[in-house]
Amino acid sequence: MQIHYSSEEIGGLSRFNRANLINSLSGVKSCSLISTIAKDGIANLAIFNNIFHLGADPALLGLICRPKAAGGHTISNIETTQHFFINHVTKEFYRQAHLTSAKFSEEVDEFEVLKLEKQYHDGIAVPAVKLSPLQIHCKLEEIIPVKLNNTNIVIASVKNIYVAKEMITNDGYLNFNKVPIIASHSIDAYYEVKLMDRLAYAKPFAEALSILNME
Amino acid sequence: MQIHYSSEEIGGLSRFNRANLINSLSGVKSCSLISTIAKDGIANLAIFNNIFHLGADPALLGLICRPKAAGGHTISNIETTQHFFINHVTKEFYRQAHLTSAKFSEEVDEFEVLKLEKQYHDGIAVPAVKLSPLQIHCKLEEIIPVKLNNTNIVIASVKNIYVAKEMITNDGYLNFNKVPIIASHSIDAYYEVKLMDRLAYAKPFAEALSILNME
Repeated sequence: MQIHYSSEEIGGLSRFNRANLINSLSGVKSCSLISTIAKDGIANLAIFNNIFHLGADPALLGLICRPKAAGGHTISNIETTQHFFINHVTKEFYRQAHLTSAKFSEEVDEFEVLKLEKQYHDGIAVPAVKLSPLQIHCKLEEIIPVKLNNTNIVIASVKNIYVAKEMITNDGYLNFNKVPIIASHSIDAYYEVKLMDRLAYAKPFAEALSILNME
Repeated sequence: MQIHYSSEEIGGLSRFNRANLINSLSGVKSCSLISTIAKDGIANLAIFNNIFHLGADPALLGLICRPKAAGGHTISNIETTQHFFINHVTKEFYRQAHLTSAKFSEEVDEFEVLKLEKQYHDGIAVPAVKLSPLQIHCKLEEIIPVKLNNTNIVIASVKNIYVAKEMITNDGYLNFNKVPIIASHSIDAYYEVKLMDRLAYAKPFAEALSILNME
């Protein structure tokens, strides 16, 4: 049975139910810890699943940051130091990842509080999350303010990729089932992901052929 | 073992391998068919997984569209008619969803070619995909051009939600495991998703408590 929520009905929901519903709409997505450092060197970790692909050449990623008035340290650190890591989250540390959303004060280093080991890479001041099988070193390119609700779209170029060897397939694709990478949904839900198929390049009026076993 | 790709090494990959690698970085995401109509009324379907949550109040979603020069019909239809549907994809029709990425000419109605039934809702000219358990009717609010690579960020408000009743939980959250909704990854991979946990609101220096069985 199909249920219909109109704008009016959405507006009439309690704040909590509306947030759960509206945050559900964009779907289940891989979740990451973004690591940054502040001007004084204190490291910060924050959970994100609003990261999107913007282009392959040049390699660009985007992420949505809440209004600065909401006090997130991630965007102010990115503005100050330009560099950050996207660290994909696994089953092994999703609870710690979730806890980064608690309102820790600025002087708290979430790596330390949550007992997540830092990994430093040559020439990069920001630490990565050692347990993460896919660490992406990014550099700020542009912050686009969204006037409609004061959020900010951070656009960054991909500078270095550190990836578990077993994820790399012959054609460059990273197989997310070779490591226990998880996804998140809405405000508080976590999902496992299971590779089901890969399909050949689509052509008009042709069949969708599986290429999963050709890897 | 950890493998390192520097900017130079990424730039040195073949176009195909680089696209597979870079498109893998943002992770596995729920995938949708966006339905639109052109000025002359011809319906269009296009597969997307670059859809993000921008805000709950007002309810706003964003999506990334390729440069207009690449000839996508979705963004030109949205500009012309303002309205569109995001239709979440299930196991039942992911192959048809994949085939919408084939370069069909403008006068082709992908619903018809791919044998996906239309569902019309009261007062909305754009059809939804009948098989989809989560159909989101959106209205264009703003198109933000990204100068770095000529992509466009489409920002839309949520006007109506049509959802399978079994997905709705008591607190408003939509459980993606009550229907066979799938996710996609990089250019051609499709994943199943399996709800693993829901965690209580995070507080500093507290444990991450599961609320999965409290639904």
